[in-house]
Amino acid sequence: MDYSFSDRVQALKPSAIREIFKYASDPGVISLSAGNPAPEAFPAKEIAEISADLFAQNPIDLLQYSVTEGYTPLRETIAGSMRKKHRVGREFDRVLVTSGAQQVMDLAAKSLCNEGDVVLCEAPSFIGALNTFRSYNARLRGISLEDDGMNMEELERALKEETRVRFIYTIPNFQNPAGVTMSMEKRRRLYALAKQYGTLILEDNPYGDLRFHGEHVEAVKSLDEDGIVIYAGSFSKVIAPGMRVGYAIAPQELIQKMVVCKQGQDVHTNIWAQRVCCELMTRYDFDAHLERLRGVYRKKYKTAMDAISRFFPERVTCRPVEGGLFLWCTLPEGADMPAFCRQAVLRKVCVVPGSAFLPNENDPCRSFRINYSSPTDEQLVKGIEILGQLAKESC
Amino acid sequence: MDYSFSDRVQALKPSAIREIFKYASDPGVISLSAGNPAPEAFPAKEIAEISADLFAQNPIDLLQYSVTEGYTPLRETIAGSMRKKHRVGREFDRVLVTSGAQQVMDLAAKSLCNEGDVVLCEAPSFIGALNTFRSYNARLRGISLEDDGMNMEELERALKEETRVRFIYTIPNFQNPAGVTMSMEKRRRLYALAKQYGTLILEDNPYGDLRFHGEHVEAVKSLDEDGIVIYAGSFSKVIAPGMRVGYAIAPQELIQKMVVCKQGQDVHTNIWAQRVCCELMTRYDFDAHLERLRGVYRKKYKTAMDAISRFFPERVTCRPVEGGLFLWCTLPEGADMPAFCRQAVLRKVCVVPGSAFLPNENDPCRSFRINYSSPTDEQLVKGIEILGQLAKESC
Repeated sequence: MDYSFSDRVQALKPSAIREIFKYASDPGVISLSAGNPAPEAFPAKEIAEISADLFAQNPIDLLQYSVTEGYTPLRETIAGSMRKKHRVGREFDRVLVTSGAQQVMDLAAKSLCNEGDVVLCEAPSFIGALNTFRSYNARLRGISLEDDGMNMEELERALKEETRVRFIYTIPNFQNPAGVTMSMEKRRRLYALAKQYGTLILEDNPYGDLRFHGEHVEAVKSLDEDGIVIYAGSFSKVIAPGMRVGYAIAPQELIQKMVVCKQGQDVHTNIWAQRVCCELMTRYDFDAHLERLRGVYRKKYKTAMDAISRFFPERVTCRPVEGGLFLWCTLPEGADMPAFCRQAVLRKVCVVPGSAFLPNENDPCRSFRINYSSPTDEQLVKGIEILGQLAKESC
Repeated sequence: MDYSFSDRVQALKPSAIREIFKYASDPGVISLSAGNPAPEAFPAKEIAEISADLFAQNPIDLLQYSVTEGYTPLRETIAGSMRKKHRVGREFDRVLVTSGAQQVMDLAAKSLCNEGDVVLCEAPSFIGALNTFRSYNARLRGISLEDDGMNMEELERALKEETRVRFIYTIPNFQNPAGVTMSMEKRRRLYALAKQYGTLILEDNPYGDLRFHGEHVEAVKSLDEDGIVIYAGSFSKVIAPGMRVGYAIAPQELIQKMVVCKQGQDVHTNIWAQRVCCELMTRYDFDAHLERLRGVYRKKYKTAMDAISRFFPERVTCRPVEGGLFLWCTLPEGADMPAFCRQAVLRKVCVVPGSAFLPNENDPCRSFRINYSSPTDEQLVKGIEILGQLAKESC
């Protein structure tokens, strides 16, 4: 049988990162390639307690079909907390619980993009989101990323030139993969441009609560008086990714369409996980938990940066970050980055080649991404030492 | 802001059933409209035990990111059990764990259907699947359902006439909504026709283990020597639907493409739920559990049928079934089915109007669907009594 696939998925390849995972699962290999949160950050004891309590109380409610929109008390808890802590969510907004924030990207693209429509995104950006947009045959146009976020002149030029832009996709805090945080000034400008050109913004904020240095910057969604921002939140980095719970906050009309699409995808998100997240946010001191997480990540980050100063030659640069899980390192002019990453694997260290994150994977790229959250401190230092040695020899 | 949606979802409406749920959640209303399995059938105690054990052993593995394909021991357990018990799965097949069988429908349609491609389906059929196919702008063509499955002459005519058929969608056992089981003869004919006309079959079998009368009929997938059948299985009816765990068994090449699509949808299925399903299948006597379920459903079915003989006038017919969750009742010629269903709601009984399940919802339909698995025995008898009374008065 010769299977032919739909035009939208024919060219789609597995994420380069998930492919690298196959090497990375070799126990002899130091993986600095994952996007995994630090396992010591999981509130495992609390989740086990909550789970036992829920089963003792009313197991049927944990096991029966539920509504597509999500468990109502969780939606209310998210709405209340986001409004109070981040001024996110207005009268016209609603909350939809999703199977990870990844599903928000899928539902937004499916609801909004006809084939050939354009999504403007940071270059580089999160490969999982880019692949989802590609899977609906949207065309990606990358906007260069600077130390304080997207280049706004380039963004405006793209908005002028492209007639079919459906939304601008941004990860404003501790961006994956580049670690960049968008300044408040640029957030305001982004919002104003979107409004002026009549397009939507998809704001993906999985790492916002993991700020360990500097001052909090308000979400783009906090500016949203016009109902043009879809906000994607996630429990993957603040509770646990294996639970697959995220959420969208967006104007009711958009949420209603996303709900219909979600019915057709998975009916609703695992109800046990929704209940556990809700209890964790309400019965425990969730802010204290987040503060503890920030401590874990601050320490991990310091370990990584200390090792980088010690082992990396100066001609390899690494952008300092104020939160999140990732470092973006750049080899000197003329260096062969793909060869560097392949060599690293042979020396049993995995990093992700930066080109994997580009809207156009064939564009030149001398950067690679390091994840400092999931390796142990020892692996992290050792891995960076090996990368530094390799850089000294080869670039 | 005037939101415009993509062509594929613009016309998409929330499932009529999920809308009826809103009435049905009124505690004064007897809901015979759900698709919920019987709550007394959930192995709640076992799930609680397994969950506690898993958290005591290695909580991090329950909480961290996992692979898109699914938890390997679960995939192996499913593959082994389906091969041994049902002769399903050959050398070229692979298992993909999904977020409910609903996701199999989505991934199959997304991978295979270009806009305007045709899906042949039973008329009536499961609305959740039909809406998913619609959401990729596939065109549905219904094939009449007889007491022993699809009309095969009509199917062959459709295969001759339509040049863009991507797959034939069938629920061969205790079909939702019509309760019909396809005969082995028709399964063989279906397979031969698909092969002859070079199309695929999507076999959706959520109820297969819930046979309480008659003889088991082998799956269409058991005939699949040519790699043309995608089999969708589910734990929703045999363990618990709130966990959202299903699976696809299909040729490797198809599964690989579905995996890429799933990466973009939800990365992977909730890992706790996958682990619980795996332990239930391996550590417990799963066959004994299924036997107990069949006892529960046999009894529920008898209660429903006894009430129907007692309360329904003879001119309202109801097809006997050999398993599953649903009864398909048909009002006499000339009756106004939509009015009947509306009247029933006013008398506080919810059923689903049969037209909701038609590929073309505007086709004439005198039938409605009763669910006998989720109401209590008392509700079931009372609800049928009210429906019978209404039928006597109005048809």
